[in-house]
Amino acid sequence: MNIDMIEAAAGRINGHLRRTPLVTSPFLDEIAGRRVYVKPECLQHTGSFKARGAWSAISALDPEVREAGVMAYSSGNHAQGVAWAAAKHNAPAVILMPSDAPALKRANTQALGARVVTYNRETEDREAIGEGLAKDLNLTLVRPYDEPQVIAGQASVGLEIAEQAAEAGIEAADVLVCCGGGGLTSGIALALEARAPGLRVRTVEPEGFDDVARSLALGDVSRNNRLGGSICDAIVTPQPGELTFPIMQRLCGPGLTVSDDEALFAMAQAFLRLKLVAEPGGAVALAAALCRKEHIEGEAVVVVISGGNVDPVMFTRSLITHAEAS
Amino acid sequence: MNIDMIEAAAGRINGHLRRTPLVTSPFLDEIAGRRVYVKPECLQHTGSFKARGAWSAISALDPEVREAGVMAYSSGNHAQGVAWAAAKHNAPAVILMPSDAPALKRANTQALGARVVTYNRETEDREAIGEGLAKDLNLTLVRPYDEPQVIAGQASVGLEIAEQAAEAGIEAADVLVCCGGGGLTSGIALALEARAPGLRVRTVEPEGFDDVARSLALGDVSRNNRLGGSICDAIVTPQPGELTFPIMQRLCGPGLTVSDDEALFAMAQAFLRLKLVAEPGGAVALAAALCRKEHIEGEAVVVVISGGNVDPVMFTRSLITHAEAS
Repeated sequence: MNIDMIEAAAGRINGHLRRTPLVTSPFLDEIAGRRVYVKPECLQHTGSFKARGAWSAISALDPEVREAGVMAYSSGNHAQGVAWAAAKHNAPAVILMPSDAPALKRANTQALGARVVTYNRETEDREAIGEGLAKDLNLTLVRPYDEPQVIAGQASVGLEIAEQAAEAGIEAADVLVCCGGGGLTSGIALALEARAPGLRVRTVEPEGFDDVARSLALGDVSRNNRLGGSICDAIVTPQPGELTFPIMQRLCGPGLTVSDDEALFAMAQAFLRLKLVAEPGGAVALAAALCRKEHIEGEAVVVVISGGNVDPVMFTRSLITHAEAS
Repeated sequence: MNIDMIEAAAGRINGHLRRTPLVTSPFLDEIAGRRVYVKPECLQHTGSFKARGAWSAISALDPEVREAGVMAYSSGNHAQGVAWAAAKHNAPAVILMPSDAPALKRANTQALGARVVTYNRETEDREAIGEGLAKDLNLTLVRPYDEPQVIAGQASVGLEIAEQAAEAGIEAADVLVCCGGGGLTSGIALALEARAPGLRVRTVEPEGFDDVARSLALGDVSRNNRLGGSICDAIVTPQPGELTFPIMQRLCGPGLTVSDDEALFAMAQAFLRLKLVAEPGGAVALAAALCRKEHIEGEAVVVVISGGNVDPVMFTRSLITHAEAS
């Protein structure tokens, strides 16, 4: 993984993915006690940054390999990204998805043209099932984070942040990124290392599912005790990735955690102040900016909202809980 | 009003207002039966396009006049736009607002630094009250639509659509714009006349409040029978503007109307497919694209979502009514 590979992925992505803006609100600045710059990847194709990594990986395949088809396992956003990017490349796609994934994500993945196969995420090993399927059907597995071309694709978020931060006059700041397996986090960290070294990435996870924060603190890979029970389903993974953890260990500051209720609060603020739809896992970085200000450094903070694929019932819960008083 | 004045306003706005993107979703295309390009002005500062016209008008004032202060009357979005633009110019602002305006709009206007004065929109004449206040306090009235510099500012939406449509390869299309007094509509129509003559503006209004559609059909100004009772509060005005109607009459195609329920449906689709928060009045153009396809011409349609300042209760209503099944 180096900046040349990231620039090459950005070149393949250019014109096919959206360059999301960097948006602000004086109301968020007031809550956070510093200037808050939000990178809304919920506005990306398929509603999350995952379309970037999927495009990068699929566009990098040999044409004959690509034509045979791709497969992916995902809690939903990577699934939609792969389904979308595969369809745009005229490649078949099979998606292995947990049986408890939000209905919207499953329906969207199928509507984007992919075949969906389900598994139980508490009792079955998705990677074993996925690799078996890929072998039987001659499909190429697109891993959600432990895949160099996927990391290089997610890194395009970091290249854009570097440019947009320079335009906004931000030379030094914490960049808060929600973290599951670490593909987005490590990609952004690599891009910023090369293009905006004054910006430091910090991971944000749900309380009780803070494998990355603990791993960073311990200096060694630590697993989550459980994989179900968080509303932030999109960013719950067993442990940091093999490729991504060394990158995060080298480049990222201490990890942050937020509660489910703080994630819901951040969703309500994104609704009220930015007119954006964020999913719980996608809102944890904004939640940290708003609710962990004493743990963040600098006069400005950059926050990635990673996705907006949230079921209406969960979104309504955030509004009922946190937006009524406004 | 001419293109030079519009270009001058765009020059004053440049760097202070957001250039909103043009976004798409294959799911919306399928419902509409054609390609749908959405211009989300809900992502603009203050959550609506009104910040453009306010900035244009306030930035055009003589400095001594501006320092004395400005005032505005508005159902809410123009109020927030004027409050925001005035504060950015270090000018005091007084806002005359109907007593039944959504709580969020009133609170936001005050938080942006303006003084809010209320009136009853069914029994009192806001223009008489506003002009009296302006005279007593030596404030300059910034009219919501019948003001050339405001129209010129809203026209910057049209300049952006012209550029973005060209980039997307759209040479001919209907451009659907929600219409209250007609400032946004006439501004966009003037900009497109000069920069993208293949794009034709169509007004969209709530059923029962279709003063502009009837006026366009009659060739003469027609009033609404009532001013309360629509959920699309942001775009209910007594009649088309004196400056805006002749422009719309010359440049716009036949007006469209949608029901409250169709506006709620469009809000739910913006949530599900674009991850955007639209207010009812801001969603009527998208509603027309999705629900009036037999009245629209061409293989593509451009839709402006004009704002996203919606109370959580109303937003929840759109999700409960129209997003549960997804």
